Amino acid sequence: MSAGKLIGVGVGPGDPELMTLKAVRALAEADVIAHFAKAGNTSHARAIAAQHLRPGITELPLLYPVTTELPACSSGYRNALRDFYDNAAATLAAHLEAGRVVAVICEGDPLFYGSYMHVHTRLAARFPVEIVAGVTGMSGCWSAAGMPIAQGDDVFTVLPATLPEDELARRLTDADAAVVMKVGRHLSKLRRALKTSGRLPRAIYVERGTMADAKMIPLSAKPDDDAPYFAVVLVPGWEERP
Amino acid sequence: MSAGKLIGVGVGPGDPELMTLKAVRALAEADVIAHFAKAGNTSHARAIAAQHLRPGITELPLLYPVTTELPACSSGYRNALRDFYDNAAATLAAHLEAGRVVAVICEGDPLFYGSYMHVHTRLAARFPVEIVAGVTGMSGCWSAAGMPIAQGDDVFTVLPATLPEDELARRLTDADAAVVMKVGRHLSKLRRALKTSGRLPRAIYVERGTMADAKMIPLSAKPDDDAPYFAVVLVPGWEERP
Repeated sequence: MSAGKLIGVGVGPGDPELMTLKAVRALAEADVIAHFAKAGNTSHARAIAAQHLRPGITELPLLYPVTTELPACSSGYRNALRDFYDNAAATLAAHLEAGRVVAVICEGDPLFYGSYMHVHTRLAARFPVEIVAGVTGMSGCWSAAGMPIAQGDDVFTVLPATLPEDELARRLTDADAAVVMKVGRHLSKLRRALKTSGRLPRAIYVERGTMADAKMIPLSAKPDDDAPYFAVVLVPGWEERP
Repeated sequence: MSAGKLIGVGVGPGDPELMTLKAVRALAEADVIAHFAKAGNTSHARAIAAQHLRPGITELPLLYPVTTELPACSSGYRNALRDFYDNAAATLAAHLEAGRVVAVICEGDPLFYGSYMHVHTRLAARFPVEIVAGVTGMSGCWSAAGMPIAQGDDVFTVLPATLPEDELARRLTDADAAVVMKVGRHLSKLRRALKTSGRLPRAIYVERGTMADAKMIPLSAKPDDDAPYFAVVLVPGWEERP
């Protein structure tokens, strides 16, 4: 019996039409489709890919035991996640050892801030692995906003809004263009950091960037600091336009 | 007569299967397909999209008058490019005024370091515009390398290798993960900056990342500093893996 194959399949930022031809083919050829979700929730990646799943395909939901209930820096959180990824990898390995092709579907791009990479690093040395690159969530956002983000010799950076205010301000000042992720409850701090760095006038606030009900406004025009966890702020570079 | 529509269509990093379903549909629906290339060369984007162009579709090559013949900081270069983009926008506008749907096909993602944005900024206020996000060249590279690039609260940055050595070293030290673009004749300088920043052992050199003849090796194992303009160096983050 030949060994199976693990495929990390990026399904893009949300619009099902932003799946690649290669992702669609991978889903057509897979024996098993796995997807990450919080226990009790359905997977975003599965919702994006739904119309391309073969009827009767074996599905393998990988359900996080915790997400935001414990602080991310606590040993309880880290241990729970380590055990979860170990178990997820063991479950996938059983299918791979049985010779099956297992596609793990991922929002955005599998190797860019995704959960998939936790099972990838546990399995890539033992089984054939393929990655199907995907359109990232941030590309989906600046495309939906019609906003050129970086050009020429711009330095572009991705920052988590969880950084301390002075770190955010320093890094925003130091980059030509930026995307700030995980905005959520950090928006008032981020707003101050953008002001300190002189970037507030250029900053665009984006919620549900590639969904039909997307919300995009200049951050300076947003009257409150309420934001969901997955909101992003875009700071375009490219100040000298020929 | 209704106004036409401009569509910036990302066709991904090189593998034609990494085109999105939406890009394929945009090409099927367009009246005119435009693409950028250096005079005398064929467009990479056109080569990627070739099998999806309708027979007899009107094609509009937009040919750069100069690329590397003049220094990018010279006024001659800047003026030549400004005139070129003005003329390209005027040519596109004539088709749009005639009510046609014009798709400008772009390698990677249209609004991330692409030529398309130069015509976008000249036309977006006058005509309906749509952007079809694409898989970026850098996603294509780290996916082909099977290398997780960033995770969790990593700070990720994109740097042009044209920066001075001390700037490169400082920024490489300051980021958790990085992609260095436009490596070309800057590789020896970049190698020194990676060494200074302690990132050399993690750096991966990638040439033609999403082509069948891709070349990927740890930079520390590459015996020379010869590199084409479009080579990239990947520096993965995510040091603490649960």
